[in-house]
Amino acid sequence: MNSWRPIGIIGGMGPAATADFLSRLVVAVGATGDSGHPRVFVDSNPHVPDRTSARAAMGPSPGPALAAMAQGLVAQGAEVLAMPCNAAHGWADDIRAAVPVPFVDIVATAVAVVLKKPVRKVGLLAIGATLDARLYHDRLAAAGVATVDPDRAAVEALVARIKAGDSGADVRDAMAQQAAFLVDAGAEAIIAACTEIPLVLDAAAVNVPFVDATQTLVDALLIAALLH
Amino acid sequence: MNSWRPIGIIGGMGPAATADFLSRLVVAVGATGDSGHPRVFVDSNPHVPDRTSARAAMGPSPGPALAAMAQGLVAQGAEVLAMPCNAAHGWADDIRAAVPVPFVDIVATAVAVVLKKPVRKVGLLAIGATLDARLYHDRLAAAGVATVDPDRAAVEALVARIKAGDSGADVRDAMAQQAAFLVDAGAEAIIAACTEIPLVLDAAAVNVPFVDATQTLVDALLIAALLH
Repeated sequence: MNSWRPIGIIGGMGPAATADFLSRLVVAVGATGDSGHPRVFVDSNPHVPDRTSARAAMGPSPGPALAAMAQGLVAQGAEVLAMPCNAAHGWADDIRAAVPVPFVDIVATAVAVVLKKPVRKVGLLAIGATLDARLYHDRLAAAGVATVDPDRAAVEALVARIKAGDSGADVRDAMAQQAAFLVDAGAEAIIAACTEIPLVLDAAAVNVPFVDATQTLVDALLIAALLH
Repeated sequence: MNSWRPIGIIGGMGPAATADFLSRLVVAVGATGDSGHPRVFVDSNPHVPDRTSARAAMGPSPGPALAAMAQGLVAQGAEVLAMPCNAAHGWADDIRAAVPVPFVDIVATAVAVVLKKPVRKVGLLAIGATLDARLYHDRLAAAGVATVDPDRAAVEALVARIKAGDSGADVRDAMAQQAAFLVDAGAEAIIAACTEIPLVLDAAAVNVPFVDATQTLVDALLIAALLH
């Protein structure tokens, strides 16, 4: 039976994406009973200052709130942290500076999976705060991979509907269409670079390789948490 | 927009049931965006001493671990607590004694829903630790409602399969059959009195009123957490 470091999840951005992350973590552990699972502390905090407003210099930074959440999780006993929100990784350095435990970075884990694929141009299904911070652009460019930006207004409108609880067929079809636009623009793979997106989109709806950043974080987090 | 007390979830018994609880909580809030949700702290601790062993006096009490989890959640900021595990409610008094905040009791919430129905005899889909502690028997008897016990070995074997990640058609059919046995024995309603059970059974699979204790806890917890 595996044993694990206690995990801390800096969550709530949004709450449904955090619940999805926890569910996937449980499945990915693949234990045969309760005691084979890691202990997981979650702070699902939907009151972290808005990432899009902060990126546009129209609101406070989420950095201090994220750092305080990280410290709270470590105080509870967490020995490795992850945050199922791409845009909030624009403030990942605030988290790293606040705690002495490893922080598994969703951008790094998603890019690592992309770079295993023979692709030269990747479509970013993401919101503006992620795009403006160039979280994916710069890492991919450094590896010689070009990017295609989405229709950010359209993607953000769909993410807002998901955050309002709508994951119905209309939203699913519209998100698949946004992915198709990226493919039309030359993307040879798609990154679901917003944790709300896989709530309505999966590989079956995309006709190029589909990298679900959330799942890459689940997988890498369990590797980081594994003791033996 | 509603505002909420921070919620603490004493979880991990088992981990999939806790993830299911968090997912349902997010859906039940019904907010139109992140900021309409409550802050939720989760301690998913799969290392709480086994409830069945403890009930059989063959292992340590889970009480101290549950009390410590409750204290940790309150230290994080939780102002109302709930625990998505029926059997562990045999040690609910340890939790109540450990913290000064309300603890919403799944047995109380499920029984309250049962008592709104015109039923005289209720089937308990539960494991031995819940049955032996008479968590449901005594409360229902006090209200004049009789109970029917399940084939505990069969239910426990199915719960073990669910805890091992199997929620496939075989487990679903077998759990529905256990519910049907209770109906055959005179049950006029069924309580899913183990938080793994609704992972494989819903009202559509049962031909009498079906009370999902997990959902009653979600609903009552949100009422307890609502500020305005």
